[in-house]
Amino acid sequence: MTPPNESAPLPRLLITLGDVAGVGPEIVARAWPRLFVHCRPVVVGDPAWLQRGLDLIGSSITVRPVHRPADAEPAPDVMPCVAGSDQDLSGVPIGQVSAAAGRAAYDFLCRAIDATLAGEADGVVTAPLHKEGLHAAGLPYPGHTEILAERCGVREFAMVLAVEGLAVAHVTLHMALRDVFRHLTTAAVVEKARLLDGLLRRLLGRKPRLGVAALNPHASDGGLFGDEEERIIAPAVAKARAEGLDVSGSWPTDTLFVRARDGEFDGVVAMYHDQGHIALKLLGRGRAVNISAGLPIVRTSVAHGTAYDIAGKGVADASSLVEAARVAALLARTRGERPV
Amino acid sequence: MTPPNESAPLPRLLITLGDVAGVGPEIVARAWPRLFVHCRPVVVGDPAWLQRGLDLIGSSITVRPVHRPADAEPAPDVMPCVAGSDQDLSGVPIGQVSAAAGRAAYDFLCRAIDATLAGEADGVVTAPLHKEGLHAAGLPYPGHTEILAERCGVREFAMVLAVEGLAVAHVTLHMALRDVFRHLTTAAVVEKARLLDGLLRRLLGRKPRLGVAALNPHASDGGLFGDEEERIIAPAVAKARAEGLDVSGSWPTDTLFVRARDGEFDGVVAMYHDQGHIALKLLGRGRAVNISAGLPIVRTSVAHGTAYDIAGKGVADASSLVEAARVAALLARTRGERPV
Repeated sequence: MTPPNESAPLPRLLITLGDVAGVGPEIVARAWPRLFVHCRPVVVGDPAWLQRGLDLIGSSITVRPVHRPADAEPAPDVMPCVAGSDQDLSGVPIGQVSAAAGRAAYDFLCRAIDATLAGEADGVVTAPLHKEGLHAAGLPYPGHTEILAERCGVREFAMVLAVEGLAVAHVTLHMALRDVFRHLTTAAVVEKARLLDGLLRRLLGRKPRLGVAALNPHASDGGLFGDEEERIIAPAVAKARAEGLDVSGSWPTDTLFVRARDGEFDGVVAMYHDQGHIALKLLGRGRAVNISAGLPIVRTSVAHGTAYDIAGKGVADASSLVEAARVAALLARTRGERPV
Repeated sequence: MTPPNESAPLPRLLITLGDVAGVGPEIVARAWPRLFVHCRPVVVGDPAWLQRGLDLIGSSITVRPVHRPADAEPAPDVMPCVAGSDQDLSGVPIGQVSAAAGRAAYDFLCRAIDATLAGEADGVVTAPLHKEGLHAAGLPYPGHTEILAERCGVREFAMVLAVEGLAVAHVTLHMALRDVFRHLTTAAVVEKARLLDGLLRRLLGRKPRLGVAALNPHASDGGLFGDEEERIIAPAVAKARAEGLDVSGSWPTDTLFVRARDGEFDGVVAMYHDQGHIALKLLGRGRAVNISAGLPIVRTSVAHGTAYDIAGKGVADASSLVEAARVAALLARTRGERPV
């Protein structure tokens, strides 16, 4: 790890509440006492739903509505909350898709992005939103990452999923498996390798070792099962190597993740969503974190969804949110910028 | 586990040598002393290459060429070997694809299948073969499983990959990812669920709990990312449930495997090769086993390939072969048949 500047104040991180019908309010409430070692947290969300999250876990922390992130200092017993949406959320049913909660989750995120771009905070940590909620609200985004990229005006970006010791960038993400083939290009593979390399250099303080996953079983077994390895991925690996990256592949994906787990690679470039997610959820044991690479702001997220099935039951695990805040703080402190 | 008949002799298992240019001879040599607790092993392969495997690990075990599996009793220091091919393997280069080794691997397997079908043995345990070797020999099979099915005259079969506590059946297997879509049918999903159910009933002695994987990320997120879940998989799950199976899904694959690892499911029906293999190789830590379901004979296999890159170096791990023999012996003893 690059040693942070120990004398600087902890980074101010905006914690978005996500879809309030999901586990967001509960995990933010539960994580709160564990966030202070890493950052100065400020919630962007809905004060009433945040209070419901606190009530759910029997917490006596006080929610303090504020207009701007800097208006109140967070404390273990004081939770500053910027009201991030003008949606009426009083009738949102818990554990169900609703347009109001979908729209509000979008508003919270946009408010947090704008505040961070404006230098009012050092980064954004997001609780989960629900894509069907977004769609119900007429917002045609597949997820957080695409909203972030659009609002930050960025075209080359990647969602990196990380656990201790391994980070994965996905070349394609929120789309039908059937659609992966037309999005898989040499340029896209090179782009994700570059973004992963840049992110891991900051997290590790050295050049990372990257492995590129194959698309087909057995990396096509010499061309018996498909040709994307030879036609698309091999030229990308060659180009990235020519640019100075420590990258190899494509490797058969099942053994690649075992090799990565055992320490041979710091990062993996995966071709599609489940390829990376199956491995990292098994390896992460609840502590996986999403990191947006390629944005002008620091942004991390929990690696799980809204978990509607357990929302409101008081059993959600806040580990991923705490870990996301830890990584965001580390990234904020290694940027060499102190916007606040 | 169903209690085996403790007074019966241990099952006689035929261990095929696979592609001799790979790690087969070494892992058979290395596993030999650990096989006797589970079975009476007899090698079907090439005595000279088997000797090379023993020499590689410095073993003083004697290879005893025999004509039929019952011609010699195996012992810790005596390795009966049926010469299973008339190919001249003296010039096969180690660690490389060759037509001779590919053909011989096929011959070994056929010899073992025929002997087991004829009642001369209780099951087959296979070391890895190399698909390019098969193809170099003009044999158009993607792998062991398809040869077994053809030679046994079976149309409904499945390759099940198992680790302690979890077994996975694949609806599609050795094909380009691009070709999965046209092979994924409701009938195929039902068939694999049935085969997995039948196999696990024998291994567990009770009705297994099965989860069916989705094809698309987030199980299509309600139809946002593809429609195979609703169109193909849901009707299959409904049909299998109507037949009395304890099966649910489709579930988002990344969380399904975490739930299965944590004990919620005994078996998973996976839609394509890497989906199952990524999870099981991470969970198996070298001890994963392939099991053929739906055949009239017992057959298990190591879950790894020929590993040409380490062949002849004396570093191969025989754990998967030992585990494959253990599972084959268990299946042979729970069939209620004692053909030998």
